[in-house]
Amino acid sequence: MEPEPNPLFVFPHRHLLGVAGLSPQDIEGLLAAAEDAVALSRQFEKKRVSLRGRTQINLFFENSTRTQSSFEIAGKRLGADVMNMSVGSSSIKKGETVLDTAATLNAMRPDIIVVRHHAAGAVALLAQKVDCSVINAGDGAHEHPTQALLDALTIKRAKGRIEGLVVAICGDVLHSRVARSNIILLNALGARVRVVAPSTLLPAGVERLGVTTYRTMREGLKDADVVMMLRLQLERMDGSYVPSVKEYFAHFGLDAQKLAYAKPDAVVMHPGPMNRGVEIASEVADGPRSLIRDQVEMGVAVRMAVLEALGGRLRNA
Amino acid sequence: MEPEPNPLFVFPHRHLLGVAGLSPQDIEGLLAAAEDAVALSRQFEKKRVSLRGRTQINLFFENSTRTQSSFEIAGKRLGADVMNMSVGSSSIKKGETVLDTAATLNAMRPDIIVVRHHAAGAVALLAQKVDCSVINAGDGAHEHPTQALLDALTIKRAKGRIEGLVVAICGDVLHSRVARSNIILLNALGARVRVVAPSTLLPAGVERLGVTTYRTMREGLKDADVVMMLRLQLERMDGSYVPSVKEYFAHFGLDAQKLAYAKPDAVVMHPGPMNRGVEIASEVADGPRSLIRDQVEMGVAVRMAVLEALGGRLRNA
Amino acid sequence: MEPEPNPLFVFPHRHLLGVAGLSPQDIEGLLAAAEDAVALSRQFEKKRVSLRGRTQINLFFENSTRTQSSFEIAGKRLGADVMNMSVGSSSIKKGETVLDTAATLNAMRPDIIVVRHHAAGAVALLAQKVDCSVINAGDGAHEHPTQALLDALTIKRAKGRIEGLVVAICGDVLHSRVARSNIILLNALGARVRVVAPSTLLPAGVERLGVTTYRTMREGLKDADVVMMLRLQLERMDGSYVPSVKEYFAHFGLDAQKLAYAKPDAVVMHPGPMNRGVEIASEVADGPRSLIRDQVEMGVAVRMAVLEALGGRLRNA
Repeated sequence: MEPEPNPLFVFPHRHLLGVAGLSPQDIEGLLAAAEDAVALSRQFEKKRVSLRGRTQINLFFENSTRTQSSFEIAGKRLGADVMNMSVGSSSIKKGETVLDTAATLNAMRPDIIVVRHHAAGAVALLAQKVDCSVINAGDGAHEHPTQALLDALTIKRAKGRIEGLVVAICGDVLHSRVARSNIILLNALGARVRVVAPSTLLPAGVERLGVTTYRTMREGLKDADVVMMLRLQLERMDGSYVPSVKEYFAHFGLDAQKLAYAKPDAVVMHPGPMNRGVEIASEVADGPRSLIRDQVEMGVAVRMAVLEALGGRLRNA
Repeated sequence: MEPEPNPLFVFPHRHLLGVAGLSPQDIEGLLAAAEDAVALSRQFEKKRVSLRGRTQINLFFENSTRTQSSFEIAGKRLGADVMNMSVGSSSIKKGETVLDTAATLNAMRPDIIVVRHHAAGAVALLAQKVDCSVINAGDGAHEHPTQALLDALTIKRAKGRIEGLVVAICGDVLHSRVARSNIILLNALGARVRVVAPSTLLPAGVERLGVTTYRTMREGLKDADVVMMLRLQLERMDGSYVPSVKEYFAHFGLDAQKLAYAKPDAVVMHPGPMNRGVEIASEVADGPRSLIRDQVEMGVAVRMAVLEALGGRLRNA
Repeated sequence: MEPEPNPLFVFPHRHLLGVAGLSPQDIEGLLAAAEDAVALSRQFEKKRVSLRGRTQINLFFENSTRTQSSFEIAGKRLGADVMNMSVGSSSIKKGETVLDTAATLNAMRPDIIVVRHHAAGAVALLAQKVDCSVINAGDGAHEHPTQALLDALTIKRAKGRIEGLVVAICGDVLHSRVARSNIILLNALGARVRVVAPSTLLPAGVERLGVTTYRTMREGLKDADVVMMLRLQLERMDGSYVPSVKEYFAHFGLDAQKLAYAKPDAVVMHPGPMNRGVEIASEVADGPRSLIRDQVEMGVAVRMAVLEALGGRLRNA
């Protein structure tokens, strides 16, 4: 018996451009559907045909093995026809604009386009130009909604709940859409969210998102239930401030000593790919409290849930 | 109910190397089958299993997101096992010849190989060396038969007929396999075909293909029902003549003013990707008389029709 | 009627990391299953669903069109969900380690990972870190087990047996995992294996693998039933010894004259891609005694057999 999607959950949006705007019911529905997908992916025959005859295009203007693979496997497990398109082999090189690319793909009658783009807002713009559903797989420093959903599912499975938990998001918050989406979603689910970062890596006005800010790991991790490390995005730093890796690790890299500031049963998360020895030590990344591998598994499941919510017969839009 | 292929249409060729040599019955059969495919692709579940268990290889020696994607989606909607192979990641780099590549792929027992190559005639040569069907997806300045078929289908749907229409093909005819295939096909279907280009971009002896030539848009577009713009193939010009883009646009770029020379109900086409502001202005490309997006949709449909004609059970060869 | 896999063959290993360690029963079982796969791939509808709902990842740290395509087609013909991942577009570039990549992929719950890596032993190391089956698609100069199996199948079909045959493996033995796997497998099947190479291209102690060594083609090919040429791996030579191509061909390139040293019915093999005019002449490569195309066909079949043995319901591990 294959796990079936819940026939009563109807997702009321055409696109998933961010976690901002999702209701608690939306979130709960997606997380419950993702639980079904976890069960399906652990079976011998991990296949459902809910997206049979549906066309999914993964349109990546930025390379991301991890995220693209996760969406590709998710779509295939649901029976979709999945096509990858990365910008390296694309007509963009011939001078075509992003919107022309969108219009061209749209004319091929896809049902879902999964888009990653280096500019904040580009995915939403693209979504306005197409007839199908669009999933934001990361746009600049703006949003990465499936990452926040998979992180929420991972926490919920590990801790039994999200409401009331203290979650410390640590590191390069400035360049991180992961941080931004997580702050919004975790707040919506009732967690108490902190960010811990050097002032140079904190975006101005981040407090308005409903977080408290800390400048040291010792203070920021105190009583934390969840320690969520961020990748130091050296590739996005434009020369204004590039921290010394050694100094960064000394102050903000998570090792066993700093993890001891948090609760004894605190769990450790990282969206990957990790810079070992930069923002996280291997002793912690590979330790018993690490949920990093669970996050990857939940990633496939959450994407299956989102693909089904947008591409299945039950979408209400 | 899924739209079914017409069981009475039997395509009498093993390959589709060009539109030259197709009979009016062949063309009509393919266009009718493509109409079925349009209907299928507009359904919720856009899937037919006519190519189930058939292996389709997309072998692209030149990058082309648009054409490769179109063939990939077409094959997958028909249930084929589709494999993409682009030369960048290929053994060609290890010194293997094109014919060795063909022989190797052939030994893997594919049913259809879709080939794009930068040299005119390379696809026909390859077709002689394999046991399966070969579709020419563009070879040098020679032919691009599925482009001509999709253009014919687009015109037929917009105008109700092709016979007797005045079609003006404008721009870089010299480097264009699209122009060449369109001239042949539209002539075969009874259109009156003109080419409009500066003399440096007209191939010698093009009149022998059965077209009249014009040197100005004003003369060439007079009474035209269809204005088909060509991409200025700057990447194929070897230094002998590279027009100034600004000057080119002034004389041969299609804008609203030049479009006014054509019939009031003339439609505008472009094979894409467009150089906006070079051969076409956005006001026209995105205007109400543009069929450019329809062409893309018809592209998937025509390729489904061709794949089924060559790879389905009914091929007569 | 589709050819069915033999329900009585149970493969007792979780991974296929090399041919070393395979029992004669293992080998016979795989070759018999591959015979079934040959029959399936020659049918109109070349499809079986034995791997339906199974996830196969092709993880290539070295480019190889030929081998990756063969595994991709093999998996798709068995109904698996196949995902290609090549290192060029991978997170490795972002500093992630090979083992992090393995752990990440593993968390996506694949059933089989096919790995090619430039370092000997890397595939075995990776196999220790994952829960699924791993197939070695070539690791440095160590092993390439599916190549040896496909070569054995090719010989068996051409000669009716392997036991007692004289097989001469000629050329760049030093850099060749193909040679190494073939020596081990052919010895296990009772062939008498020779290697023929200049002393600079013979690994030290190769005799311990159970071969006799020859320095000239005239001596090495005498009475040979099978002449197996190796690709001159110029790209792996680090400057210590790069032979002159002309001189190499004169002494070790297989042409009709040198082939005459072997038995009159000797067959010719090459793993591809060939350097024509370097290690083999076209008159031989394309001649009537060449089995080079058969090897490619057997490659798909052997990979189907291995994928089914590891990923099907009958694996005993």
